[in-house]
Amino acid sequence: MDSLPLSSTREYRIAKDGIDSLELHETPLNALKRNEVLVKIYSVALNYRDLIIVNGNYPAVVKDNVVPCSDMAGQVVAVSPSVTRWKIGDRVTSSFFLDHIYGELNANSFETALGGPIDGVLTQYRAFPEHALVAIPDKLTYHEVASLPCAGVSAYNALYGAVPLKPGDSVLVQGTGGVSLLALQIAASAGASVIITSSSDAKLEIARGLGAMHTINYRTTPDWDKEVLKLTNGTGVDYVIEVGGEATLGKSLASIRVGGYIPMVGYLAGLDRPSDFGNLVVKVISKAANLRGIPGGHRGHLENLIKLISVTGMKPYIVRVFKFDEAKLAFSYLAKQEHVGKVVIQVADD
Amino acid sequence: MDSLPLSSTREYRIAKDGIDSLELHETPLNALKRNEVLVKIYSVALNYRDLIIVNGNYPAVVKDNVVPCSDMAGQVVAVSPSVTRWKIGDRVTSSFFLDHIYGELNANSFETALGGPIDGVLTQYRAFPEHALVAIPDKLTYHEVASLPCAGVSAYNALYGAVPLKPGDSVLVQGTGGVSLLALQIAASAGASVIITSSSDAKLEIARGLGAMHTINYRTTPDWDKEVLKLTNGTGVDYVIEVGGEATLGKSLASIRVGGYIPMVGYLAGLDRPSDFGNLVVKVISKAANLRGIPGGHRGHLENLIKLISVTGMKPYIVRVFKFDEAKLAFSYLAKQEHVGKVVIQVADD
Amino acid sequence: MDSLPLSSTREYRIAKDGIDSLELHETPLNALKRNEVLVKIYSVALNYRDLIIVNGNYPAVVKDNVVPCSDMAGQVVAVSPSVTRWKIGDRVTSSFFLDHIYGELNANSFETALGGPIDGVLTQYRAFPEHALVAIPDKLTYHEVASLPCAGVSAYNALYGAVPLKPGDSVLVQGTGGVSLLALQIAASAGASVIITSSSDAKLEIARGLGAMHTINYRTTPDWDKEVLKLTNGTGVDYVIEVGGEATLGKSLASIRVGGYIPMVGYLAGLDRPSDFGNLVVKVISKAANLRGIPGGHRGHLENLIKLISVTGMKPYIVRVFKFDEAKLAFSYLAKQEHVGKVVIQVADD
Amino acid sequence: MDSLPLSSTREYRIAKDGIDSLELHETPLNALKRNEVLVKIYSVALNYRDLIIVNGNYPAVVKDNVVPCSDMAGQVVAVSPSVTRWKIGDRVTSSFFLDHIYGELNANSFETALGGPIDGVLTQYRAFPEHALVAIPDKLTYHEVASLPCAGVSAYNALYGAVPLKPGDSVLVQGTGGVSLLALQIAASAGASVIITSSSDAKLEIARGLGAMHTINYRTTPDWDKEVLKLTNGTGVDYVIEVGGEATLGKSLASIRVGGYIPMVGYLAGLDRPSDFGNLVVKVISKAANLRGIPGGHRGHLENLIKLISVTGMKPYIVRVFKFDEAKLAFSYLAKQEHVGKVVIQVADD
Repeated sequence: MDSLPLSSTREYRIAKDGIDSLELHETPLNALKRNEVLVKIYSVALNYRDLIIVNGNYPAVVKDNVVPCSDMAGQVVAVSPSVTRWKIGDRVTSSFFLDHIYGELNANSFETALGGPIDGVLTQYRAFPEHALVAIPDKLTYHEVASLPCAGVSAYNALYGAVPLKPGDSVLVQGTGGVSLLALQIAASAGASVIITSSSDAKLEIARGLGAMHTINYRTTPDWDKEVLKLTNGTGVDYVIEVGGEATLGKSLASIRVGGYIPMVGYLAGLDRPSDFGNLVVKVISKAANLRGIPGGHRGHLENLIKLISVTGMKPYIVRVFKFDEAKLAFSYLAKQEHVGKVVIQVADD
Repeated sequence: MDSLPLSSTREYRIAKDGIDSLELHETPLNALKRNEVLVKIYSVALNYRDLIIVNGNYPAVVKDNVVPCSDMAGQVVAVSPSVTRWKIGDRVTSSFFLDHIYGELNANSFETALGGPIDGVLTQYRAFPEHALVAIPDKLTYHEVASLPCAGVSAYNALYGAVPLKPGDSVLVQGTGGVSLLALQIAASAGASVIITSSSDAKLEIARGLGAMHTINYRTTPDWDKEVLKLTNGTGVDYVIEVGGEATLGKSLASIRVGGYIPMVGYLAGLDRPSDFGNLVVKVISKAANLRGIPGGHRGHLENLIKLISVTGMKPYIVRVFKFDEAKLAFSYLAKQEHVGKVVIQVADD
Repeated sequence: MDSLPLSSTREYRIAKDGIDSLELHETPLNALKRNEVLVKIYSVALNYRDLIIVNGNYPAVVKDNVVPCSDMAGQVVAVSPSVTRWKIGDRVTSSFFLDHIYGELNANSFETALGGPIDGVLTQYRAFPEHALVAIPDKLTYHEVASLPCAGVSAYNALYGAVPLKPGDSVLVQGTGGVSLLALQIAASAGASVIITSSSDAKLEIARGLGAMHTINYRTTPDWDKEVLKLTNGTGVDYVIEVGGEATLGKSLASIRVGGYIPMVGYLAGLDRPSDFGNLVVKVISKAANLRGIPGGHRGHLENLIKLISVTGMKPYIVRVFKFDEAKLAFSYLAKQEHVGKVVIQVADD
Repeated sequence: MDSLPLSSTREYRIAKDGIDSLELHETPLNALKRNEVLVKIYSVALNYRDLIIVNGNYPAVVKDNVVPCSDMAGQVVAVSPSVTRWKIGDRVTSSFFLDHIYGELNANSFETALGGPIDGVLTQYRAFPEHALVAIPDKLTYHEVASLPCAGVSAYNALYGAVPLKPGDSVLVQGTGGVSLLALQIAASAGASVIITSSSDAKLEIARGLGAMHTINYRTTPDWDKEVLKLTNGTGVDYVIEVGGEATLGKSLASIRVGGYIPMVGYLAGLDRPSDFGNLVVKVISKAANLRGIPGGHRGHLENLIKLISVTGMKPYIVRVFKFDEAKLAFSYLAKQEHVGKVVIQVADD
């Protein structure tokens, strides 16, 4: 690869904290390094993580003036000569951690999370190492696949990364955020029964349409853990996809069966919220509970999730598509948290 | 339990080899032993195993004058006083191996297979140890649940007993016999893609209706392994449910991906058929294949399968129902092997 | 079994809270129930759990006037006629949860923990259901085997109950209590490297003799988590056997490698101690940590542990043997927490 | 990396079939490619596979005039500028399949086996992709580590690659070849009990010294499967490391417990030997056996094995060291099959 088909890309960078600080830059493209592939990005999907990074509230390292966002789908437009897995024209998405290919995460791979410690994907063109990319099947759209690398892979890892979900198992998902909704859809398409909570009957109605078997409005039923026990004949569910954090973990422990699983994916209820548990250790032991931190997942999870979607026909639920120039609007829309489903930015026209 | 609600049962026994040797006896019922439960049987489903036992061709120990059949569904009509898990009126089915509750099979549990080394279930009433029974959910019928303990549990164990099937995986099932059809339905309801083979386009049409994604007529396509590779872009399938035996194992090894799984459940092609493999050891090693003998499964598998069916709504496919007095007809129908689906005997009216 | 070889047993019961409230009673023996076995108890080993039960500080249900202690070894002296697994003269120990035979714990099995919700083993004779007993190999003594059902099985479950320890892995054990010491010995005999902490150099010296590769005195090195990182080249250990509770969990999270395992077995640092972690959820997620509550283990764990000891020659470390009449002394000795190793009570002479 | 520290290497190549056809060539070194590392090789260990490749009997693809041998240990003498994991002076060994890093083998990785489809390591210098190398701890020698990549990793994969060996388990190893002896040592150092067979009491004596608990001379005890059952109280062993092939698989199936494991690693008894089993399928099913083809293992296995050796102090057993110029002698010595232990070639002086 001696010359690139273009010399620069337009990309968003975070100037300082806040959505208004997002700035569009014209940045020159470097020559491709060994094993790199240049991708023209068509679709970028937003996650709650992107919002707290833009707002300066992320409890981990973020690069200065980072290009935000981790989830994209696009097409290969140039390849370094040493590249063997890809050719121009291939449709691809990328792993959330560029270097987390398989097995257990390690400290080095942690530092390759797109849109945090390294630049992300809210840009027209970006070079990726060839090992970070995953092929998109013909029948899936860019928007659908862009919905997967962060939230979808976290949901997949939560359900299949350790003791895998079996058809017939029961799953509780908290709220209708990105991870929760994709966990609902994955679990339902794999033959599990899903209970979902939300503060809004309208959102619960959407969730029911996406496969939820039971719904709980936690505004009218604040003791949702008791309702979960009632729905499971007093036994508790097999899995709780925990996204609330300190403020919900106690009720999650009350909601699982003895020996159940609590993959911990987020802390959407906020970091400053008091914990709702008494002595956590006693509860974990007496419930023989399994808690597992899920900071994302690896390329294998993404490949398996795409296979799952191809076979089952599950459709990631996209609520709204913004144009590339409307990125600030998209973030503001996300910040209101009134929507259900993925918010995506169409970077280029198909 | 001092007195039983009835004093005898009518039951079939095998006099000597052959369907015509099936005889109906009136047999006195013994007092219940500790931990026993008396079950009124409503439905019995037949398996190919029952046929070769009746015909005297079973390559394992069979009790003299055995009551045939392993799969039933019925209702508790009496319980020994020490029984805690069941009460009169409960709807139940039973584990294929009475004493194989969980974990790995052992030599002792092997000797508790219904309708082989011990008397089976083709009878109006039978006492079972309480630990061998499993509850039937309201929404499932006796016929549906009677279809599961032998063939269904073998299929479930084949798919979930070791490295569990994931949604998105690919499965090849051979033919449309009991295990194959239930493996197809289980895999499809769990989000996997299924390829099925048969010598009959009519049977393949039925299989397609039950969820098969691809079908192969092995009469017109004798090199079905090559067709499987074609359908999987040259990679091979993740699982082959092997039911043919020596005559098909070689093609099964050719059909899996490197590192794939071959649960071995049967030898329907006959024990006298020549093997179709050259040096098996070289093939297993060079394919990094996983072969696993499946002589049935345990109570936990049956419980999980019933949970799966309750949640997914999968319906065991019943092709024909015979009356209790038509048992010989039922076996003859099975022997013709022209049908697809479970053949059941209605022992009592609902 | 119509008549027992004796009519009563002498047993300790807790009158009210405190060691001094332990009272010796002469209690009549009931006729054996179906499937029961009468065991003459030779050895009882004490656990920290027994002490907090005697002192009335146990955070779970305890029967009134309970016979304390869960861990014994003895000999079968009578069997109910229906018993098939045991005969008079067999040397046996018992599962901590009488009804937890295998697989995942459930709420019912939880209620069968010896010396808590039901009467325990600090008695001369006790009837057990046959399924709760495990055979003792010839070469192991009563005292050695009595050391295993609670602490040993918890340690075994912590290391092998989920993702099993591999030879070459690294394990951190906290302190020299019963579970910690047995975890050290099990891990060392299985080819793992062990780091152990204690406030006493003398205790660490004993631990080194039992196989510890590295020792940390947490009095002189209060930041033991940093020392653990130093000893593992900054990576962290594969497993931390967590027995401190809220007061140590934060440092345990800091001590493991990314993706490491923290089986949570106890809260020896006390329930009223402030937690040493900030936002637990953030730490668990960013470390991709695996936390698992260990309320004991099942009969299969006990059988496997006894097999391990038979093959490896590992010797449970017994520090002091008291006579049956010295039970209060034994509890007082345990309460001082100055010892290292198991404290056992010789109930009968060999 | 613009210039290499040297311009050529002396290496053996197979001219045609037979040990005598081995020829020493002076071959120019190419400039390092991206991500490549140049290694000065100090030690090469031989495997039975190398012998049948040299003799032209390998039942898989071999490159024309291939440089034989897969197992080496050496030191980094040059690195391509893009290399991040290695620096000059590092002591390294290499994965048997250069591209099989983790997880399941695939067809592409299969084609990267050293000394077969691609050139091997019987050379003074060789370039490796950086991802194929593994670090050698200070306390291990080049000869010890060179003994591991093919035979040691196969043994490790056989014992830990699927359902992992537990301390206390029983293992049968067949003969005293490279894989068998390393399997014996790994299992013994991990707390398992090992039974070993051989036709020579002298070899069995050596095996006993390396940790075997029981030995069987199959010349004087041809029904070694019956002897295995006797040694395990009629139960059978948990694992048989199957290296004989068709001629021993039947007895291996007879030797395992119900539900046991038979990793299949080789066919040392020859490919033309008749099988010793009747109907394999019936035996596998009725034993609920688990057979798994082991064509080697991945880099993770090699890393774990080196960790195991570092912690346990297990010493690969080296029987004879030849000089680089004595390579033909070394192969002839191996061909006689009278030795026990690894045969290594010292390519350079330490």
